[in-house]
Amino acid sequence: MFFASDNAGPALPEVMQALTDANTGYQMPYGNDTIMDEVRQTLRDLFEAPEATIYLVTTGTAANSLALASYTQPWDTIFCSPVAHIHEDECNAPEFYAGGAKLTLVPGNDRMTPDALRTTITNEQNRGVHGPQRGPVSITQVTEQGGVYSVEEIQALSAVAKEFDLPVHLDGARFANALVALGCTPAEMTWKAGVDMVSFGGTKNGCMGVEAVIFFEPTKAWEFELRRKRGAHLLSKHRYLSAQMSGYLKEGAWLKAATKANDNCAHLLSGLKANGANILHSVDANIIFATLPRAVHQKLLGSGAVYYVMGGDVDAGDPDEQLMARFVCDWSLSTQQIDQFISLF
Amino acid sequence: MFFASDNAGPALPEVMQALTDANTGYQMPYGNDTIMDEVRQTLRDLFEAPEATIYLVTTGTAANSLALASYTQPWDTIFCSPVAHIHEDECNAPEFYAGGAKLTLVPGNDRMTPDALRTTITNEQNRGVHGPQRGPVSITQVTEQGGVYSVEEIQALSAVAKEFDLPVHLDGARFANALVALGCTPAEMTWKAGVDMVSFGGTKNGCMGVEAVIFFEPTKAWEFELRRKRGAHLLSKHRYLSAQMSGYLKEGAWLKAATKANDNCAHLLSGLKANGANILHSVDANIIFATLPRAVHQKLLGSGAVYYVMGGDVDAGDPDEQLMARFVCDWSLSTQQIDQFISLF
Amino acid sequence: MFFASDNAGPALPEVMQALTDANTGYQMPYGNDTIMDEVRQTLRDLFEAPEATIYLVTTGTAANSLALASYTQPWDTIFCSPVAHIHEDECNAPEFYAGGAKLTLVPGNDRMTPDALRTTITNEQNRGVHGPQRGPVSITQVTEQGGVYSVEEIQALSAVAKEFDLPVHLDGARFANALVALGCTPAEMTWKAGVDMVSFGGTKNGCMGVEAVIFFEPTKAWEFELRRKRGAHLLSKHRYLSAQMSGYLKEGAWLKAATKANDNCAHLLSGLKANGANILHSVDANIIFATLPRAVHQKLLGSGAVYYVMGGDVDAGDPDEQLMARFVCDWSLSTQQIDQFISLF
Amino acid sequence: MFFASDNAGPALPEVMQALTDANTGYQMPYGNDTIMDEVRQTLRDLFEAPEATIYLVTTGTAANSLALASYTQPWDTIFCSPVAHIHEDECNAPEFYAGGAKLTLVPGNDRMTPDALRTTITNEQNRGVHGPQRGPVSITQVTEQGGVYSVEEIQALSAVAKEFDLPVHLDGARFANALVALGCTPAEMTWKAGVDMVSFGGTKNGCMGVEAVIFFEPTKAWEFELRRKRGAHLLSKHRYLSAQMSGYLKEGAWLKAATKANDNCAHLLSGLKANGANILHSVDANIIFATLPRAVHQKLLGSGAVYYVMGGDVDAGDPDEQLMARFVCDWSLSTQQIDQFISLF
Repeated sequence: MFFASDNAGPALPEVMQALTDANTGYQMPYGNDTIMDEVRQTLRDLFEAPEATIYLVTTGTAANSLALASYTQPWDTIFCSPVAHIHEDECNAPEFYAGGAKLTLVPGNDRMTPDALRTTITNEQNRGVHGPQRGPVSITQVTEQGGVYSVEEIQALSAVAKEFDLPVHLDGARFANALVALGCTPAEMTWKAGVDMVSFGGTKNGCMGVEAVIFFEPTKAWEFELRRKRGAHLLSKHRYLSAQMSGYLKEGAWLKAATKANDNCAHLLSGLKANGANILHSVDANIIFATLPRAVHQKLLGSGAVYYVMGGDVDAGDPDEQLMARFVCDWSLSTQQIDQFISLF
Repeated sequence: MFFASDNAGPALPEVMQALTDANTGYQMPYGNDTIMDEVRQTLRDLFEAPEATIYLVTTGTAANSLALASYTQPWDTIFCSPVAHIHEDECNAPEFYAGGAKLTLVPGNDRMTPDALRTTITNEQNRGVHGPQRGPVSITQVTEQGGVYSVEEIQALSAVAKEFDLPVHLDGARFANALVALGCTPAEMTWKAGVDMVSFGGTKNGCMGVEAVIFFEPTKAWEFELRRKRGAHLLSKHRYLSAQMSGYLKEGAWLKAATKANDNCAHLLSGLKANGANILHSVDANIIFATLPRAVHQKLLGSGAVYYVMGGDVDAGDPDEQLMARFVCDWSLSTQQIDQFISLF
Repeated sequence: MFFASDNAGPALPEVMQALTDANTGYQMPYGNDTIMDEVRQTLRDLFEAPEATIYLVTTGTAANSLALASYTQPWDTIFCSPVAHIHEDECNAPEFYAGGAKLTLVPGNDRMTPDALRTTITNEQNRGVHGPQRGPVSITQVTEQGGVYSVEEIQALSAVAKEFDLPVHLDGARFANALVALGCTPAEMTWKAGVDMVSFGGTKNGCMGVEAVIFFEPTKAWEFELRRKRGAHLLSKHRYLSAQMSGYLKEGAWLKAATKANDNCAHLLSGLKANGANILHSVDANIIFATLPRAVHQKLLGSGAVYYVMGGDVDAGDPDEQLMARFVCDWSLSTQQIDQFISLF
Repeated sequence: MFFASDNAGPALPEVMQALTDANTGYQMPYGNDTIMDEVRQTLRDLFEAPEATIYLVTTGTAANSLALASYTQPWDTIFCSPVAHIHEDECNAPEFYAGGAKLTLVPGNDRMTPDALRTTITNEQNRGVHGPQRGPVSITQVTEQGGVYSVEEIQALSAVAKEFDLPVHLDGARFANALVALGCTPAEMTWKAGVDMVSFGGTKNGCMGVEAVIFFEPTKAWEFELRRKRGAHLLSKHRYLSAQMSGYLKEGAWLKAATKANDNCAHLLSGLKANGANILHSVDANIIFATLPRAVHQKLLGSGAVYYVMGGDVDAGDPDEQLMARFVCDWSLSTQQIDQFISLF
């Protein structure tokens, strides 16, 4: 009954096996391992992008910050949602890696709209050298509120960015969950929709700690390698990152895991609804925001369920007061666990 | 016959096993896993330092840069050897993490001497606000040239640092190799000798990618946590770092591995000497620098041995010219492999 | 008929004279000139703050960025208005000097309200190590929209900051204009109202390029000196900064200039109103925002008046459309020039 | 009898006059003043460089740091002399502005030699992504030890830099003193000798605080403008920088001042020699390093002379011990003052 986050579950058996298999003999360090060659090819094939530049790092924050920094000057500003992970949850890492750049928030909830993005970009620059300069647009897919942009929505946001010649970044910490939700190809959700660079998450969907940074055009390759090393994110025994990603991608393990996570979420959603929960945003992948009365939270949490209540103090106050909570499902939850949780109501 | 680096070998079976054992169920993310509680206690016990603050990161560069940054202002300079890893091999990561601080090189080879350190520190500041301010002293143990400071030497360097009220950092990427070489305790090699913070390496001696940062007094704990997160070095599924370190420390696995690596090196050293190699620095742990004629390098490398030749072009030139090479032994080398290599001469 | 900005006018005769007087013989460099001793004392007396630390720099951006950086960690966020100069007009200088810190915008126009500030600060931190940490509150006095906070309003904002133990910065690029408008003492507008540090502007009110940074408690003095030098803002021939400030402060020249500027503005305001201008914000000092029909702008600008039209293209469009403009008055404008301008309507 | 530094004397009458003349009416801010147009043209003519990009800042540290940052990536290293101002006297400002880049010292005293430079550059990079990358070469002209590179020497250093495709920066804080010493043209000492960017000093030779940054090819113009603003070095009332530079350049005032300073130095040098001073470096412009017995220093300083003794404590010790001192002459010293000083021996 663990719904706190998809960053707290175990690694996929396929990932563990790949790691075990990789643990023999010598491999050249720093990304020159042979497993990385295979991973690179697999991702290029998956993305139908034979020229793509592909690097592995251990955290989503590193993937986002290093990718964005490669396209952001210190005097630029990055456009993102007010609830973007890069804004709320990375302790100024994007600003650090980009040398002190700014983030400009596009008003709105969940998914950014093209109109709000255009207005925000337009407003950001009529000050010449005095104001920050326009930098990349960063889209979070799945959003931090559980929404999934349609391919058309990504296209529309990219089109706005292109009006201003700005690069587009996709924070795909939950890339697989979004892809499964949309039923499209990786290419359709990224470069075919105008995305220039992707943080392709592995950790939340069954790896131990690996994310790929993918640039669809290779201009920034060498600069990225220097940035990664300077950021202390180049692992010497890199094969253990490669192996994770290799196991993750093998025979669709990543898609199966995301499908299971999303299905788990759908199952949980119907259970929550049946018990009167008020659902707050569209539930498109594996995240639910809902309100429940304080007394209900107390019962659920008291019975061993684990999830975050964000709207106030669970322990004290009016038992009928509605408090917001977040429920995240990962692939490793079983239907039984969800049913057990629902039975607690 | 792989002597290129101890960062290219496999992980210890104990580490792999601990990782497998850890891969079940949920664990709170971001260092709040229960395995980390155990690791923290184990390291505090090992270092006889019940108040020590202990954090895990994935690379030695991260450990060094984050530890140093916690004690370095952007207008400071860090004192280190000209061959220090932080100077030569981290692509300005220490400068990056310390906000643009400088490194001041203490003249000399291999191990810094107290006199050279004192002179360098003294010279660094007679300029008030104009020059960089004096920052930490960083000692590499094992040095990049294979030397191991005696406990007395570390004490003497620390004493110089303390004359100027400067903190002392120990880059212990090969901490275990040095400890085994000295036959002392972790406390003797560190805080009892005046060291304030340690990068306690795991990766080179049998982990996949984990290093501990240890502060012997806890003042900087919260700041370090923020620096680590801002540097994108806080892993969500942190249990997999904890597990590596747990397996590494269990039942002396780390010391056995380092003993084997050092013994391998001693065996290799006698073989090299017997075949006329000119040994360049003192060989105290698991690293040898030696010169051999170009023709000999060609034969060895041509037969499948792997190591770095640093003194010139192996492929072209006078066959009798002496070229410098580096040989590093890890725990996973067998005596047979070394004998096989020696038999190639 | 120049209303574009108060950064485009000449220097006060008193400032010019002081500069001429200072231009003889040798003076120790880097702030050790004797004129600075006098300036320091004068400002301490003016602010009734005998312990205050006082430094001079050449730009308002430097004053703001260096002052804030002294109280902002790289992982912090600074709270300010969406129209604050530090946010909109300093090309990420505050972020640069603070090592990559963030700015968090307090919703609202013109003057921040205590409630909006409290809500914003409260919202900023429930994320532990993941979100930015709370940093200073920065108040712009005169605001960028021409408003002047009352002493009580500053007290109320400071009180909110103090609830969270946050320092308070006052961007006083137009300090004198605000002071004259309020008719209070410098101490009342600053430390007595809870302000910890002030950017005390000289440039806009009759200097050539000098601003004082004032800290009311001296803890950060040495750090500031290092930050100033590292920022390349420590002038060797510092006497020429001191002299400007000395002339500016002598015999109330600064207050007379600000009084004249504010009076000019009041005179202009009545002229604008009499001619049908729509006044947008409260006009409290020397800045007016107003809308006028495009045709009127065309006539005024075509007749040689200089001011910024911000609401759209002056040259093309419906002649009756209202376009926003900004009018700033400095001390050097004469009543005749204003009357001449008004006569153009 | 002031020989402490050429940063402590008054401004040239021509500079003061230009400032006074400029102090009337309105001028567009931020470098858009008409005086700057004239300065830009004058400098382009002087340098025979019609395409040169020219900017003004207030300090030599700003000129150096901003110029170098425009050609230095954060992972690069800048090559310079161990006694370079950018290394010893700028409190890590070059590192700050370049985002954490490193400085690599070319062994030697006074003037760098092409061989030492080539060896240093060669050694700096055989480490791929691990070591810092090669960045600009910075030449100080006049050196901090008083030497002046011949045009041929600058050509030879630039030629080495070009072997590695590295840009060349000239720190010309004492540009005029060097030019007068060499009797060549500005073009010959800079771009014709392979220099790409110049910090063209005004402050030490008779301005109040102004230095020009000159790029001989305009690629970095816009980036420099953003860097200058972000560094808080863009003055609003820019005309007062322009005016200083205008007065400085008018009718050869700058060359006359430098000639006088160098002549003063030659006069002082013969006086020092005649009184037994031991001259330490070549005296090529307006700086002398010499040793004198402690007792002599005591007499000179006790009689009111002002200069820096660097070799030890003047007040205490063996009266016969030789202590190193530095003597700098500016344009405003009179021959009588020098004679008076010499008469003190």
